[in-house]
Amino acid sequence: MSEIFKKHLEKFIEINESEFLDILAFFQAIKVRKKENLLVEGQICKSHYFVLNGCLRKFFVNEKGIEQTTEFAIENWWITDNIAFENKLTSEFYIQAVENSEILVIDYLSQQKLLIEFPKMERYFRFIYQRAYGASQMRIKYLYSFSKEDFYHQLNSKYPEFVQRIPQYLIASFLGFTPEYLSEIRNKKRS
Amino acid sequence: MSEIFKKHLEKFIEINESEFLDILAFFQAIKVRKKENLLVEGQICKSHYFVLNGCLRKFFVNEKGIEQTTEFAIENWWITDNIAFENKLTSEFYIQAVENSEILVIDYLSQQKLLIEFPKMERYFRFIYQRAYGASQMRIKYLYSFSKEDFYHQLNSKYPEFVQRIPQYLIASFLGFTPEYLSEIRNKKRS
Repeated sequence: MSEIFKKHLEKFIEINESEFLDILAFFQAIKVRKKENLLVEGQICKSHYFVLNGCLRKFFVNEKGIEQTTEFAIENWWITDNIAFENKLTSEFYIQAVENSEILVIDYLSQQKLLIEFPKMERYFRFIYQRAYGASQMRIKYLYSFSKEDFYHQLNSKYPEFVQRIPQYLIASFLGFTPEYLSEIRNKKRS
Repeated sequence: MSEIFKKHLEKFIEINESEFLDILAFFQAIKVRKKENLLVEGQICKSHYFVLNGCLRKFFVNEKGIEQTTEFAIENWWITDNIAFENKLTSEFYIQAVENSEILVIDYLSQQKLLIEFPKMERYFRFIYQRAYGASQMRIKYLYSFSKEDFYHQLNSKYPEFVQRIPQYLIASFLGFTPEYLSEIRNKKRS
């Protein structure tokens, strides 16, 4: 399973087997079951999660008591509440398994040590944050420029496999509308 | 003026005077006048901008022809269209000076060379992208959870000096409403 992480690292940095094993020692491998929470609102966010397989999501509960999903992480993606993680703050978010998942977990101090002991991991994480930041900039543009319906069509045309894979009520929660409205849009498209 | 950049770098990494001068040689220092465009929609995004003083903003023109500001950069902030910059793509954004500004500019190849020649700059940019990514995650949460009016009050209470400094029609463009509506909200608060 850790081979997945090695292959992923090799997309960004050169790394030999012995270095990889030393790097891997900073992580804990865990399995989580569907709907299990890794982080709960109000907890200190202590960990950064890398998805080996499965899917996690991040959400907050809005003032109407509705879960608003802001992010998904599938294979080869990182997820955490970054500001809370970096500043050891309580989080306003939940992180929950969408599917049974296998995850690598690293805590804040271990990530700091890893970066000091393996400067090439600075390069790796620079790429990771850079990519994530670029994606979130486009996300912000979409939030301003697309209607919720357009946003759904955009998601569906760019990531059809993802939309198929994820339960529809969570796609609705990500887009910010009710499952009923999503189902209406889908039916409209078919007819 | 370049002292500002050195002090900023020193918040993240240790750097001596000779290294700093070598690093600075990768950049070009320019002055831009208020309302001058550094990037125009449809152009390849070739540069990454660091604000020494003044203020830049990034915006796109929506389908109604209205400028939607998605980001400001004041002193010590970076700004570019990150996905376009990293992939040498045409941009969907404009970057424009809000005030007369002094800027450090680095092009894509120079930034790559800088990172290779000064690995400590990997650490620096890792911090920069990490911080920017964390901020954009919170921004996305606000876009989902706040009404436009709440967003204004949040901005005003967290960054009162910024709201005072920036022309009100640009604050309105950032919040996604008309200058008239912003003025209405401001008057409501006063009364």
